[in-house]
Amino acid sequence: PGASCLTRSQSHDIAELTGLGLRLADAAAEVTVAHFRAPDLVAANKEGDSGFDPVTVADRASEAAMRAILTAERPGDGIFGEEHENTESTSGLTWVLDPIDGTRAFISGLPLWGTLIALDDGKRGRIGIVDQPYIGERYVGIVDGPQTRAWMARGGLETPLQTRSGVSLGDATLFTTDPFLFEGAEYDAFVELRARARLTRFGTDCYAYALLAMGMIDLVVESGLQAYDIASHIPLIEAAGGRVTDWEGGDCRWGGRVVAAGSADLHAKTLDLLAKAG
Amino acid sequence: PGASCLTRSQSHDIAELTGLGLRLADAAAEVTVAHFRAPDLVAANKEGDSGFDPVTVADRASEAAMRAILTAERPGDGIFGEEHENTESTSGLTWVLDPIDGTRAFISGLPLWGTLIALDDGKRGRIGIVDQPYIGERYVGIVDGPQTRAWMARGGLETPLQTRSGVSLGDATLFTTDPFLFEGAEYDAFVELRARARLTRFGTDCYAYALLAMGMIDLVVESGLQAYDIASHIPLIEAAGGRVTDWEGGDCRWGGRVVAAGSADLHAKTLDLLAKAG
Repeated sequence: PGASCLTRSQSHDIAELTGLGLRLADAAAEVTVAHFRAPDLVAANKEGDSGFDPVTVADRASEAAMRAILTAERPGDGIFGEEHENTESTSGLTWVLDPIDGTRAFISGLPLWGTLIALDDGKRGRIGIVDQPYIGERYVGIVDGPQTRAWMARGGLETPLQTRSGVSLGDATLFTTDPFLFEGAEYDAFVELRARARLTRFGTDCYAYALLAMGMIDLVVESGLQAYDIASHIPLIEAAGGRVTDWEGGDCRWGGRVVAAGSADLHAKTLDLLAKAG
Repeated sequence: PGASCLTRSQSHDIAELTGLGLRLADAAAEVTVAHFRAPDLVAANKEGDSGFDPVTVADRASEAAMRAILTAERPGDGIFGEEHENTESTSGLTWVLDPIDGTRAFISGLPLWGTLIALDDGKRGRIGIVDQPYIGERYVGIVDGPQTRAWMARGGLETPLQTRSGVSLGDATLFTTDPFLFEGAEYDAFVELRARARLTRFGTDCYAYALLAMGMIDLVVESGLQAYDIASHIPLIEAAGGRVTDWEGGDCRWGGRVVAAGSADLHAKTLDLLAKAG
């Protein structure tokens, strides 16, 4: 609608663009799976002495593989990726890529990392893909105006994705990657939220958003995210029936603090609690 | 050796007993995979109002399936399982079973739960199996006197397991299921350990021990474990070259506080640090 860069006629292309997104995931998977658990994989530290933010040849080479396809087939589209320089968009469309979300999981042999691919039309995310090629799961969400579709594909089978609703905070399952990533008042707010939820689990990176889209869990709360950490999850979860915003209810597609919930009701209650406790 | 209940002649049976263990894993997997992510799965709470300790029909039915096989084929062996009454051993051998380690992960749709199967000869664990049937991975370790063997099977391929050695604490990757499970001085000791390690990750239940056996990570530190949470991991990790004890360096096969490390050196350094910090 309005100034969205994917106009009515272009929206017919959404199936084609989704097909392209899936081919990007295939290209990335070829690289990532070959390096996953390989004995010679070395993790370089992007933070130097101040901490540990690993990156591997698998991150860089899988993003390069996706970029090569986009440059050849969609030269006007922008590319915003974690590991390489950004490419400006002239078409109005931008691909947001995280070749390996969860590099810490990847270098630990834990198959909860994922390749994240999003298509943003300048106003919102339209396509979101979370691919976990070792387990063989691919989560896809499409927001095409009022039409949405979300599914998980594994072993040739497609399962529709639908978030869980009607769950109170006291019955909710909450996920976050690492409680120590919250700072100051954020940490206090998280501790309060954790005390209210029925079950809290850690360590999942992108996989938590896939579980939310599947209706297996109810809440993901995080902070300090980059655009490429969250861009794919917004259309995925919206298309499955959930809500994703920042902690104040605003657009979070460029990163920051995120609340993703299976229902609008649980989302609103969570924002309330975080505002009071934080 | 000595009073061990698996004598020299019986030790020829270790291959047969391992085969039986693998059939137990097959029987459990048939039940667990059918219930994993099923829309009608209900989690009952074993703790009542004091907390949330979920159990499902999948836990109970998969343990029952394993017990049925043992009762028919090895009536003299003891059975110590999480979900049903213990069976006394008259043979000297006891099977220690956790049908679903990580029920919280199971009910959240996260494929990091596992079926744990151990064979204890009255002095030590001889066979340890960690089975993750959704991902399709089976980790097996055998300690047959001085002879050990450990491997991971997936998709018809067997990969030998070998822990990582020569890693200092400052370069180590540390896993634990949930930092909030440590209490009082234990928590302080964990925080100190986390500050020294290069990378700390959460949320893995039994899967962390599999990653340790694979040489992908270096340390697992936990507390409050039951025998069925740890029995399978000791032969698995010992057979892969690592060490598993309680925080004081003693036998932990009946549960409690556990340090599992990829090398004897890292294990000793970790015990030292925990003793000083705790």
